[in-house]
Amino acid sequence: MEYRIEKDTMGEVKVPVDAYYGAQTQRSIDNFRIAQDINKMPKEIIQAFAYLKKAAALTNLDAGVLSQEKTTLIAQACDEILAGKLDDQFPLVVWQTGSGTQSNMNVNEVVAYRAHVINGGLLTDKEKAVHPNDDVNKSQSSNDTFPTAMHIAAYKMLIETTIPGIEKLRDTLAEKAEAFKHIVKIGRTHFMDATPLTLGQEISGYVSQLNHGLKAIKNTLEHLSELALGGTAVGTGINTPKGYSENVAKHIANLTGLPFITAENKFEALAAHDAIVEAHGALKTVAVSLMKIANDIRMLSSGPRSGIGELHIPDNEPGSSIMPGKVNPTQCEALTMIAAQVLGNDVTINIGGATGHFELNVFKPVMIYNFLHSARLIGDGCVSFNDKCAVGLAPIEANIKKHVDNSLMLVTALNTRIGYYKAAEIAQTAHKEGTTLKEMAVKLGYVKPEEFDEWVNPINMVGDIK
Amino acid sequence: MEYRIEKDTMGEVKVPVDAYYGAQTQRSIDNFRIAQDINKMPKEIIQAFAYLKKAAALTNLDAGVLSQEKTTLIAQACDEILAGKLDDQFPLVVWQTGSGTQSNMNVNEVVAYRAHVINGGLLTDKEKAVHPNDDVNKSQSSNDTFPTAMHIAAYKMLIETTIPGIEKLRDTLAEKAEAFKHIVKIGRTHFMDATPLTLGQEISGYVSQLNHGLKAIKNTLEHLSELALGGTAVGTGINTPKGYSENVAKHIANLTGLPFITAENKFEALAAHDAIVEAHGALKTVAVSLMKIANDIRMLSSGPRSGIGELHIPDNEPGSSIMPGKVNPTQCEALTMIAAQVLGNDVTINIGGATGHFELNVFKPVMIYNFLHSARLIGDGCVSFNDKCAVGLAPIEANIKKHVDNSLMLVTALNTRIGYYKAAEIAQTAHKEGTTLKEMAVKLGYVKPEEFDEWVNPINMVGDIK
Amino acid sequence: MEYRIEKDTMGEVKVPVDAYYGAQTQRSIDNFRIAQDINKMPKEIIQAFAYLKKAAALTNLDAGVLSQEKTTLIAQACDEILAGKLDDQFPLVVWQTGSGTQSNMNVNEVVAYRAHVINGGLLTDKEKAVHPNDDVNKSQSSNDTFPTAMHIAAYKMLIETTIPGIEKLRDTLAEKAEAFKHIVKIGRTHFMDATPLTLGQEISGYVSQLNHGLKAIKNTLEHLSELALGGTAVGTGINTPKGYSENVAKHIANLTGLPFITAENKFEALAAHDAIVEAHGALKTVAVSLMKIANDIRMLSSGPRSGIGELHIPDNEPGSSIMPGKVNPTQCEALTMIAAQVLGNDVTINIGGATGHFELNVFKPVMIYNFLHSARLIGDGCVSFNDKCAVGLAPIEANIKKHVDNSLMLVTALNTRIGYYKAAEIAQTAHKEGTTLKEMAVKLGYVKPEEFDEWVNPINMVGDIK
Amino acid sequence: MEYRIEKDTMGEVKVPVDAYYGAQTQRSIDNFRIAQDINKMPKEIIQAFAYLKKAAALTNLDAGVLSQEKTTLIAQACDEILAGKLDDQFPLVVWQTGSGTQSNMNVNEVVAYRAHVINGGLLTDKEKAVHPNDDVNKSQSSNDTFPTAMHIAAYKMLIETTIPGIEKLRDTLAEKAEAFKHIVKIGRTHFMDATPLTLGQEISGYVSQLNHGLKAIKNTLEHLSELALGGTAVGTGINTPKGYSENVAKHIANLTGLPFITAENKFEALAAHDAIVEAHGALKTVAVSLMKIANDIRMLSSGPRSGIGELHIPDNEPGSSIMPGKVNPTQCEALTMIAAQVLGNDVTINIGGATGHFELNVFKPVMIYNFLHSARLIGDGCVSFNDKCAVGLAPIEANIKKHVDNSLMLVTALNTRIGYYKAAEIAQTAHKEGTTLKEMAVKLGYVKPEEFDEWVNPINMVGDIK
Repeated sequence: MEYRIEKDTMGEVKVPVDAYYGAQTQRSIDNFRIAQDINKMPKEIIQAFAYLKKAAALTNLDAGVLSQEKTTLIAQACDEILAGKLDDQFPLVVWQTGSGTQSNMNVNEVVAYRAHVINGGLLTDKEKAVHPNDDVNKSQSSNDTFPTAMHIAAYKMLIETTIPGIEKLRDTLAEKAEAFKHIVKIGRTHFMDATPLTLGQEISGYVSQLNHGLKAIKNTLEHLSELALGGTAVGTGINTPKGYSENVAKHIANLTGLPFITAENKFEALAAHDAIVEAHGALKTVAVSLMKIANDIRMLSSGPRSGIGELHIPDNEPGSSIMPGKVNPTQCEALTMIAAQVLGNDVTINIGGATGHFELNVFKPVMIYNFLHSARLIGDGCVSFNDKCAVGLAPIEANIKKHVDNSLMLVTALNTRIGYYKAAEIAQTAHKEGTTLKEMAVKLGYVKPEEFDEWVNPINMVGDIK
Repeated sequence: MEYRIEKDTMGEVKVPVDAYYGAQTQRSIDNFRIAQDINKMPKEIIQAFAYLKKAAALTNLDAGVLSQEKTTLIAQACDEILAGKLDDQFPLVVWQTGSGTQSNMNVNEVVAYRAHVINGGLLTDKEKAVHPNDDVNKSQSSNDTFPTAMHIAAYKMLIETTIPGIEKLRDTLAEKAEAFKHIVKIGRTHFMDATPLTLGQEISGYVSQLNHGLKAIKNTLEHLSELALGGTAVGTGINTPKGYSENVAKHIANLTGLPFITAENKFEALAAHDAIVEAHGALKTVAVSLMKIANDIRMLSSGPRSGIGELHIPDNEPGSSIMPGKVNPTQCEALTMIAAQVLGNDVTINIGGATGHFELNVFKPVMIYNFLHSARLIGDGCVSFNDKCAVGLAPIEANIKKHVDNSLMLVTALNTRIGYYKAAEIAQTAHKEGTTLKEMAVKLGYVKPEEFDEWVNPINMVGDIK
Repeated sequence: MEYRIEKDTMGEVKVPVDAYYGAQTQRSIDNFRIAQDINKMPKEIIQAFAYLKKAAALTNLDAGVLSQEKTTLIAQACDEILAGKLDDQFPLVVWQTGSGTQSNMNVNEVVAYRAHVINGGLLTDKEKAVHPNDDVNKSQSSNDTFPTAMHIAAYKMLIETTIPGIEKLRDTLAEKAEAFKHIVKIGRTHFMDATPLTLGQEISGYVSQLNHGLKAIKNTLEHLSELALGGTAVGTGINTPKGYSENVAKHIANLTGLPFITAENKFEALAAHDAIVEAHGALKTVAVSLMKIANDIRMLSSGPRSGIGELHIPDNEPGSSIMPGKVNPTQCEALTMIAAQVLGNDVTINIGGATGHFELNVFKPVMIYNFLHSARLIGDGCVSFNDKCAVGLAPIEANIKKHVDNSLMLVTALNTRIGYYKAAEIAQTAHKEGTTLKEMAVKLGYVKPEEFDEWVNPINMVGDIK
Repeated sequence: MEYRIEKDTMGEVKVPVDAYYGAQTQRSIDNFRIAQDINKMPKEIIQAFAYLKKAAALTNLDAGVLSQEKTTLIAQACDEILAGKLDDQFPLVVWQTGSGTQSNMNVNEVVAYRAHVINGGLLTDKEKAVHPNDDVNKSQSSNDTFPTAMHIAAYKMLIETTIPGIEKLRDTLAEKAEAFKHIVKIGRTHFMDATPLTLGQEISGYVSQLNHGLKAIKNTLEHLSELALGGTAVGTGINTPKGYSENVAKHIANLTGLPFITAENKFEALAAHDAIVEAHGALKTVAVSLMKIANDIRMLSSGPRSGIGELHIPDNEPGSSIMPGKVNPTQCEALTMIAAQVLGNDVTINIGGATGHFELNVFKPVMIYNFLHSARLIGDGCVSFNDKCAVGLAPIEANIKKHVDNSLMLVTALNTRIGYYKAAEIAQTAHKEGTTLKEMAVKLGYVKPEEFDEWVNPINMVGDIK
């Protein structure tokens, strides 16, 4: 590879001759040889930086501290990043400085040098039209830009991927709940037969879980909408022009179309990432819901002949490399693995969030890496589960009917007629002797046959199903 | 010990002769010999059951399915539980059936038998004035009572202990932030000297964290306000009279003074405890905040001679059994241990929440045990930390001044005057040669002495402190 | 209550007149009003302290720095603690100073004052025969005694409760594996029918898990056998006589009958508790195993009529307060709740272990509290599960046979005869048309009836079952 | 893109015309559109599959069930995978079927089709020289190959990356401990000044932690050395020739040079991954150690003027985009972020491990993904931390001396001379009045000046430093 020489405040560094980045990016590559093939800084963070660098330039222009020419150049370079044209210029990994300084400098360098080239310059020019620190980073610090990028990226991911994914699955399940609302099936508690309910009722519980989960996520957006930008080095806003914080938040809101505002307290915004911890607390709640839902569906569809077999799920692929004809609940498995991942990510985020010190939390990259991972997995996972599994859910009515007809727990309907103790005697004796409830109820002399038929009717045991 | 014989649907059991509980409670004692000395079912759950049993009786009376006489007796027994008079009648542990059935039956038995005794009967009477299942548990199931008790206990603990504890600490810190708002001190990022801020600003970040945490907790109360009661066995409400769910929620709201409502979807309310998972997600966020705050305070008060020593904390006790005269930040240590506990409890709750199946989650006791533990620890911990540490926080001004005066990072103020690169040269050379910034700035010829004094003034670097 | 006045280096404190503890214990009660009713310092720690205080006195006697008379008095007081006679003298909670200094002082005070009373003195005497710091704590610091107590308590609990509990369950399951080794049943993968195995083979997997888990626990005992005692304040052993560390470890080994040795590196032994983290890593592995085993057993015993129903488990108690005659897998539920608790405790221990600083980890109490909790729960939980569930496990042969006979996955045996693709066609078509495998195999012309009977025989598909 | 048509037992699928993979791989791409750009199945798993497919072919050859010709072709294709020549043929993600069936089939297809092409065939040939299921997968199932690949990949990563990385750092720290063994410094407990020790002693604690961590990892290798291969579908070994299990393990041991053996119990080996859970328990212990060590080092190097400043760490890059001349402990930050990640990964692995059912655990991909992530991060992280930080650690002797000289805790040496209470009085009064210990000791009349000099000498307080 050919190189050019770049300089920073510490001296000279060799950089690939056509790289838009400079000395500090290269130092980070050299200094952090940790999982470089698998743990790049998430592209959503780079995109978020492009928004905020452009917004900062516009705000600096408004404040009269940056020229129109430089502003335009910076904005153009940022737009190229947003268009995905410079994706290969961001080689740094998550495992760098905990403030994300090096990724901030990576963006500063790429924007400055690309701007210089847009302006007709060469990468090898000693003086550049735009300076990484003095222009692109003007009125900023890594300490306020990185957390701002965290909130932009997190908020966008939730709005664009996570919430729509959950909603899509929720909607499908709501349709199923409606479609199956009259199908009476046996309930199961403790894995044991219980009183009946309808399949629609069962699925309505999942819908309710997801609705609450969506609400929980939305409750956390307000904290995420607060941006650190304007706090600069330690939260005091040193080296920012007057009105900068409020104005730059407005520009970011404009550029992203999302309701960002400046954080009321910049000291918190740099030193803690409770908004990330809190929002991920909602994501883990959804992971918990998804684990439950996917587990139920795979157990209800278990079989085909030696399981519960009440629910049909789509056959998407051959299930076994050795057992011919086997079909497995693979979408459930992907979703439950995702849930396990999110629950682990939560712990990483908690530890990162709890371990900030003084004016700065330096677990920023690992926190946002895990957050975006979870938010993406839930969003993608719900869509995949929806498209390849939920939409194809169908009752297997023969099995459902058989299970209801055989159940001993229909005896519960007799509690209010003959009392809990006598009802228990009927069920236990029927179980022991292998008879039906009705046979035993009559044999024990507690009810007459016609009473039994009137009192013990599954459809009357499922409440109001509209 | 003397015994009497009790019976349930499975047969006879020997019970201590003066115990108010009966066969099913005794079976649980015998069947679950697990940590019985340390893991009793939390008393808050027993109290919550007392509220709901009374409310259920009143609702059954309203519906005409329970007599006035039985209702009155049940209510009286419940009031005795609430008054703490029957505390020793609830010997069961957390590690029982996952639906909490045995604790529900424990309450049913105690209420029924105590009611019978209030009514003039004897514990040894074969027939009792009030029946545990048919009267006390009327229109109920363990499956809807236990989750109802979980929400009542959780909500009450948050309102009565957790939130007031956090608010108390928040208020003290807010006073300190105001009191110290003019004390300029050095900022620290990455544990390294940074630009200055005021001690009040630093503490204001903690206040902001706690305010956001309080909001996060309050956001979860709505989900917790939903009660499962009326769902009975599987969510369908089998064996409940018309209007029961709404009415019993109103009675509970009346009795507790808290805004409980009936859950819109009872299937979720039995099969999942996402409300607990979600609310604990807010508690873990607060734990993360408290870890940060307590860590900062103990590091700022480190020393007395070889640490940072900028903050005085109260001397509450001798700190060492071997080092005479040592004083330690023990309240910080208790609080950070609490934070670690809450972060672990969160994982237990997540796993419990994720592992419900079909119509019932059977991790109920372990979930509420951990939830109440966390909520209590945060509440108590904040009060202890407040009373024994936060109220006594005071600046050690000599050290604070020394640190600001020595700092090299004041050079940041020169960025906008002479550019980042020259400013860096000043700081690095001053560091290497052990001089002050001013000496080096002048020596390098980048600024004149009077310019330095004008431009580099800590008080101008902390922004608007009102 | 009546009080007497006690003094420490900070001044006077009022103490209950007949308490054996003194000023520092009382200060801790007053300063840490956090969950005092539920989170006492575990009694195993107090007992461990009694061993080590006695051992320290004997070692000090050996070294000629403590008189025979004081040594005897200290030893007598320690023996009383070990006999449980002074249990009510240790009122402190987990949430205190993170070094456990206050519990060390609690023990020092109780031993000293009880020794004084044994010696004929009065609690109100100004001078005592034995001094808490200068005699009982001689050659010690909280910083080395508390971690020593942690290791003693942890090691003892593992040896006395955890390992025997797991072994008991392992032995029962091994018997069942042997007893059921010829019972051919359908295998299940992905909750779907798979090729057959025997019930004994299935259970042998659980036995293997527990055997590996026992080995994992035992692998961690060596690190736990290292004692910090002799490191005193920071690991250097200041204020200890020559040979103290090795000798005191020998005394502790003698007194406990366990192979304790002095830690090779005392700096680690005070500043980190990786031995606790590591050993709990083994406990969490066992928790993972138990969750799997208990889940399997409750699902295999699901039904009685609408589940899998292949395994009978004992009916220990009525299962439902509303559904008469219901029996539930309650021991499985207790055990899975325990597993969830242990997995959460693991996170608390990790965070505590990771957050030590410089010469001392100050998350000692929370770490050992969680460790002992897990170790106890696993031990007790295994015994309860063993006695009330595992010993009663029995196959329900009718269901087992029905499931094997119906299975489509027996087709796998044809792979090596006719190839995977044709075998798959047989299974899929039989599933679609609801026929048996044999009917379809013959209909499709891939095998002759007599070939099918020879090739597809479940007993030939389970390998060598000895 | 151009396509060809591939077929599996479910029908036709369009596959990129030059892809070596076939229908089942393509179905997985289409069915699992989840984070496909960031969560590919780890390449270490693909490599492990290449080893095992080759070993299986050799074993099948030995058993006479696979021809020499096919064996040679399969082996050649596997060697190409091992050489990295087919890396782009493995596009599947972690979030697929939980048994990893699709990745097994991906390998089966690529090996078969590449073998066919090596043999002179075309990808579009209808009949291939080697069949994915009947030849490449012969005597195997996903259910035993994937867990075998997990153990191979995990064991190799631990041996090749994790352990050497930790050892490298351990060795450097051991050198530093030796080099600094005479540098007396102040100890710190509770962040507060304590009695002195040497810098070498302090660092020796880190060495001891890592040595114990290495031992903990090695203790878990035995369980990891057990291979599932030969268990096939459910552990019974259906469709394997006699002696297959033992022989295939030998071939794998030969090919990898690692001591793999066949698992004694195949039912465990498919249904549970406790070996992964257990081994990761050791990794999390190391993560806990690294967090402690990195935290200490960054705090000891804090400053340069307002922190502790006792340790110099290398200046690797400019630390701040706004504060000129700032240098930060960035390697410490990367390492602590890694520790946080590993502690979260542990929870994911625990949940995955605990949630297997019946004959198969279907959290295989997520478990091994997290395991390899942790093992890699610890290995790479230790090397980076070693090379860019630990090797450059140096004492800042002026600060170290100043802190020792000022300390009040040297008073501890007086305990054995004048008793704890008088010593405490000296320290407390000196602190209050701002004097030296000596001045106060003499002033209070407890010691003579010459006694003080003799008794209170830091070098005598650090024990035996050889």
